[in-house]
Amino acid sequence: MATVNRQITLVARPAGFPRVSDFDLVYATMPSPAAGELLVRSIYLSLDPHVRQRMNENGTYPRTIVLGEVIPGGAVGLVVASEDPGFVIGDVVEGLLGWQEYAVVPARALRKIDSALAPLSTALGVLGMPGLTAYFGLLDICEPRPGETVVVSGAAGGVGMIVGQIAKIRGCHVVGVAAPDAGISWLVDELGFDAAINYRTEAELHARLEEHCPDGVDVYFDNMGGVVTDAVVRRLRPGARISVCGQLSQDNLVAPETGPRWLSQLVVKQAKVQGFLVSSFAERFPEGLERLAGWFTQGRLGYREDVARGLEAAPQAFIGMLQGKNQGKQLVHLSDS
Amino acid sequence: MATVNRQITLVARPAGFPRVSDFDLVYATMPSPAAGELLVRSIYLSLDPHVRQRMNENGTYPRTIVLGEVIPGGAVGLVVASEDPGFVIGDVVEGLLGWQEYAVVPARALRKIDSALAPLSTALGVLGMPGLTAYFGLLDICEPRPGETVVVSGAAGGVGMIVGQIAKIRGCHVVGVAAPDAGISWLVDELGFDAAINYRTEAELHARLEEHCPDGVDVYFDNMGGVVTDAVVRRLRPGARISVCGQLSQDNLVAPETGPRWLSQLVVKQAKVQGFLVSSFAERFPEGLERLAGWFTQGRLGYREDVARGLEAAPQAFIGMLQGKNQGKQLVHLSDS
Repeated sequence: MATVNRQITLVARPAGFPRVSDFDLVYATMPSPAAGELLVRSIYLSLDPHVRQRMNENGTYPRTIVLGEVIPGGAVGLVVASEDPGFVIGDVVEGLLGWQEYAVVPARALRKIDSALAPLSTALGVLGMPGLTAYFGLLDICEPRPGETVVVSGAAGGVGMIVGQIAKIRGCHVVGVAAPDAGISWLVDELGFDAAINYRTEAELHARLEEHCPDGVDVYFDNMGGVVTDAVVRRLRPGARISVCGQLSQDNLVAPETGPRWLSQLVVKQAKVQGFLVSSFAERFPEGLERLAGWFTQGRLGYREDVARGLEAAPQAFIGMLQGKNQGKQLVHLSDS
Repeated sequence: MATVNRQITLVARPAGFPRVSDFDLVYATMPSPAAGELLVRSIYLSLDPHVRQRMNENGTYPRTIVLGEVIPGGAVGLVVASEDPGFVIGDVVEGLLGWQEYAVVPARALRKIDSALAPLSTALGVLGMPGLTAYFGLLDICEPRPGETVVVSGAAGGVGMIVGQIAKIRGCHVVGVAAPDAGISWLVDELGFDAAINYRTEAELHARLEEHCPDGVDVYFDNMGGVVTDAVVRRLRPGARISVCGQLSQDNLVAPETGPRWLSQLVVKQAKVQGFLVSSFAERFPEGLERLAGWFTQGRLGYREDVARGLEAAPQAFIGMLQGKNQGKQLVHLSDS
């Protein structure tokens, strides 16, 4: 077994989009588990947009990353040493293992994965945190009804692609919007979205929304913010609900952007905007996972993954994801299962 | 009895703040009630901020005012002729009588007022639409809990002053913010607000909010929008609720204003923003009026009124209200009871 644990740490706080030089690849001593802990070798690492905000000095996100710290992130991995009676070597687990090849974590912070149910990587996607984020953020906050029009921004990302499919399961008309770089016809062709808008200009965005949402927008699941959100808000129907999951268009700006003020729209449309963190639904994760797994095994939840290879590829893959280059859930493959 | 009915009509759509020349005083023939209708002589006319939006060509508010039309508005008045068995001459009623001295209205569109319960003008204020707006917009949308910090913008207006008092009844710490022109110490001295911020600059506003809301803001009732709302949003606590009733700071702009984008704040604070029209609570108006009347008779709901004299004073009083010059509910006294 390896005696060295490779890790990616943050060495400089990014201004705007991160650069590869903001990260460092370090070689740490292999850790050992104490009582109640496990040593896990990561197989897949999840790259999550919200981590960008935690890189800011006075980030609004809970807990700022300390310089020199291993970048936080979820991963699925194999137990290689166990000091907890509930786990044995060879178990597959999911948890916050960080951007590193091995991690020692308390057993209670891990979730055991049934590798017979689905490909392991889905524990970081459709059957993991992104799936749960889509599930609760859409169903609990927006309560979409059959026949309603649902728009999701960041539709080609790990959360957005699932939001659209759950909305289809609910009988909605679903329109995805994604960043210009990503080809997104697969949202329609493979995942069953009714339309996918790969906008290039703000004017085009308005025209495409008018075309694909002729009666207006009942539900909006927002991963992006910025001009996309401005455009969707102009088309809200009375009683509209907006779930705000992220604001990817704003996270990498060097100077904060201004935009049109549109709260008046909320008054006349009697519309709701609700920001959320999926962690607030933690007690109901088992319910969410059960529903997601049910739809998955029925073949009603497809997905795409964008998989980088090797820990050293993580920074560039992360930057690409923030720029909207990923098609589906962004992962890094660290080792074989 | 008079044979002429004086009315105020809209003759030009305002650009920015309305001017007196946008209105006309016209002399119409006295109307007669048909079966099921009443002729009402107005005593007090209510001037309401949302009417400004209805003056715009393509206003976002339901139903744009047609040029030449009598300006819409609530009023309390005396029945002077009745063709409905449910009402007799001398009854006091409240309804949408418009900016005119007399109105013919269907009996079913009127509410009978018990003139022994409270001064007649309260049917347009604390015991009328502003009271109901405060009641449902605060209690139903924001659900304030004892000990929470509640901020209300436009605090010196007809709705805002009631919002603050209901929040005090609920056991909250209450901070009012109002437009610079209005002296607002009376919110503290007479109505029991914990603090009233009469801000002059944005920097001062931030400092005063920090001073008066040291633990942050749990509930925000927004009548103003603009820089006030930007400042309050920066101080939201986790789980905050915002009720958007109006955006008075934006209604009279010639060109739409831009402002900082702050949806990210909603995510990390898991906060809700809900726009509303009080009409959506129409079925529960009796409940609201009963609660408001109960608090009023217990002496727990005070109010101020700013009363202009004579129909011809309505346009200037309306403009002054839009500029934040009013102290309390803006009314026009049209005739004696």
